[in-house]
Amino acid sequence: MTAESTGYTRSRLEQLDAADPMSRWRLKFQPCDPGRVALDANSIGPMPGDVPARIDRILKQGWHGLGRRGWSEADWLDKPARLGAAVAHLIGAGADDVLVCDNTTVNLFKLLGHAWRARRQGFRILTEAANFPTDLHVADGFARLISEAGGQAELVRAPSREAVLQRLASADPDIAVVMLTHTDFRDGSAWDLATTTAAAHASGALMLWDLSHSAGAVDIDLLGAGADFAVACGYKYLCGGPGGPSLAFVHPRHREVAPILQGWMGHVGQPGFSPDYQPAPGVLRLATGTPSVVANEVFAAAADIWKQVDRAELAARHRALGDVMIGLLDQQCAGLGVSVLSPRDAAQRGGHVAFSHEGAGPIVQALLARNVTLSFRSPNAVRAGISPLYHNRVDLWDAIAVLRDVLVSGEWRRPEYSKLSI
Amino acid sequence: MTAESTGYTRSRLEQLDAADPMSRWRLKFQPCDPGRVALDANSIGPMPGDVPARIDRILKQGWHGLGRRGWSEADWLDKPARLGAAVAHLIGAGADDVLVCDNTTVNLFKLLGHAWRARRQGFRILTEAANFPTDLHVADGFARLISEAGGQAELVRAPSREAVLQRLASADPDIAVVMLTHTDFRDGSAWDLATTTAAAHASGALMLWDLSHSAGAVDIDLLGAGADFAVACGYKYLCGGPGGPSLAFVHPRHREVAPILQGWMGHVGQPGFSPDYQPAPGVLRLATGTPSVVANEVFAAAADIWKQVDRAELAARHRALGDVMIGLLDQQCAGLGVSVLSPRDAAQRGGHVAFSHEGAGPIVQALLARNVTLSFRSPNAVRAGISPLYHNRVDLWDAIAVLRDVLVSGEWRRPEYSKLSI
Repeated sequence: MTAESTGYTRSRLEQLDAADPMSRWRLKFQPCDPGRVALDANSIGPMPGDVPARIDRILKQGWHGLGRRGWSEADWLDKPARLGAAVAHLIGAGADDVLVCDNTTVNLFKLLGHAWRARRQGFRILTEAANFPTDLHVADGFARLISEAGGQAELVRAPSREAVLQRLASADPDIAVVMLTHTDFRDGSAWDLATTTAAAHASGALMLWDLSHSAGAVDIDLLGAGADFAVACGYKYLCGGPGGPSLAFVHPRHREVAPILQGWMGHVGQPGFSPDYQPAPGVLRLATGTPSVVANEVFAAAADIWKQVDRAELAARHRALGDVMIGLLDQQCAGLGVSVLSPRDAAQRGGHVAFSHEGAGPIVQALLARNVTLSFRSPNAVRAGISPLYHNRVDLWDAIAVLRDVLVSGEWRRPEYSKLSI
Repeated sequence: MTAESTGYTRSRLEQLDAADPMSRWRLKFQPCDPGRVALDANSIGPMPGDVPARIDRILKQGWHGLGRRGWSEADWLDKPARLGAAVAHLIGAGADDVLVCDNTTVNLFKLLGHAWRARRQGFRILTEAANFPTDLHVADGFARLISEAGGQAELVRAPSREAVLQRLASADPDIAVVMLTHTDFRDGSAWDLATTTAAAHASGALMLWDLSHSAGAVDIDLLGAGADFAVACGYKYLCGGPGGPSLAFVHPRHREVAPILQGWMGHVGQPGFSPDYQPAPGVLRLATGTPSVVANEVFAAAADIWKQVDRAELAARHRALGDVMIGLLDQQCAGLGVSVLSPRDAAQRGGHVAFSHEGAGPIVQALLARNVTLSFRSPNAVRAGISPLYHNRVDLWDAIAVLRDVLVSGEWRRPEYSKLSI
């Protein structure tokens, strides 16, 4: 915890915000509606302020104005690589190592294909049983596909983090690829990316990270860790728009792996009009079909901000805000049934801060009715997704003030708040 | 050819447009810029007029206003099924048979997976060598994947349409699935969907159609033909926005097939937060990751128009416009080196009308400089993608008048038009 973590007052937090150069990024986003605090960057990041104007322009001047000439005269088909290059530094990747395309589920499938191509025989995928559901679904589906085709593939679900590491440290781990989500989507705790990647490699396995609840918030260094593959959600902390495109990372050592999902946009000199598929260089071969021009333009507004953001400064800001959040929970909600679930050591925290309360679901509903957005995760967790570019310390004070009020008054026990929210 | 196909004058075509009730749909689209004719619906359909306002609203009121509540309180996650239901009738599908999701390449991959699951052993995919490149790429990639995993799979490229049908009619065709693109992307000719599907079934094969250059223009009856699977591009004649989401169709008889690309949005009660994947009913299981809310809203503007459009009236309008186009080429460009490539019988034509000329590439450039958009396809084809909801007969007159001028004057021979366009 930092020096700013005790004896909070609203004015003290205002002073800290005013003194923090990272507070300037908030001006790049759509101004917050008065009286509202939406701590939901773990679900949908805030909107860069110029998105509506940019989208209006690409609709009228691009789609309507250029028509099909947009495919050749504008940068519509170059966007996946350009957007990847703009955000690559945030996850410690080179500009040529990241493509922005498809959604995270599809990108996971493609990268499991890359891992499989790099290994082929005895394809055992190790993950933790508590991984994010779609990660489990897609890996289970991929293993079934290979098995039904006659190959050997299996998804191994270790019951805990410790069990994952024990398996990797065992005499004969027999794992082809380790697939983990960096930030746990419930309690906000994070894997140690470097040591876990090293443990996977020491066991002879490849390492595939899902950074969906980390990228754009937490310090990530994929090349530093030597990770093989990674995906990240583009619409959470990265602010790429609801359901916006996803990030796919391939370490330079795997640039020559042939993709399993061959498409004309991943063909050399895309779009590929040759009948015979020849993969584009490096990560470009992960492109599949035509990208959404409108969705990519939304992401581009965020990417233009991210280009200017220093990774270390971002992570420091995010850690400071998380510390304040936890400090405020301690100070303002003591004795009110709140237990902090996320690690107090910022180095072990991922994107969001979670706490538990027996009335977690109703509390989130009661907060919503008071214009404070947090999120519920069954059975008893409340999560705050803090955007280091958008939120400031006073937002956290204001949200926790409402939380305290809702708890002290017993307002959350009202019958109308008893239905569950996602 | 119809009675309207000879002795054209601009005023006669104006009269025909005025008398045609299908001309009313043009008012639903962004008004055409004066002096411009863009016959590029085979590449990017025209923009519904309310798209900019709808998108502005979903950005400000949806993304910024609702934030994460959009996932549960708005219809963001229901859109793929709703959009599919809105356009299903255009391709002769039931409302529950079509999902709008991902891109065409990804959907093809998923449906090849469906076909493979329905067959498993000896998975030979029959196609024509001249199929659209990404169809060849994705099928080649799928066959490689299954083969490398230890299964039997192969892409068979028949050298011609006749060779496809001969193979199916042979004593032992040994084909698991026939994968064809309904409209040839070069000459605009179309397969007979019903008889080809019947031939595939008679041979014991499944039938997978790519309707990308047909849907939204040509009369398609998938259920009538009993086709097994289909995809269609959403951003060409369907006007779903540049790079917008794609259509996937699964015949009701295959509703129970398990998807190979398992994702939380295809889980029962999506989004699926259970660690164990259980597929959603029917075509819903083809959903993968989170859909793009903004791209889907663009498509929704088109879908709101399509809901009101009768399939037979649409097809009749498209055939009439195609007949006029060919008639005008005959009448206005006689002796100028133009040869119509597309079938003169409208029943054999797909989405676009193509003609050849030795100077096809430069001609397209010269037309562009005169504000007329057509498209070039190597080596010598010029294509006009006519939108039956947007274009009228006078547009075709005006475009052909410029073409005639460019050919008679020799303007297309200027050096600046010698570079190729896509």
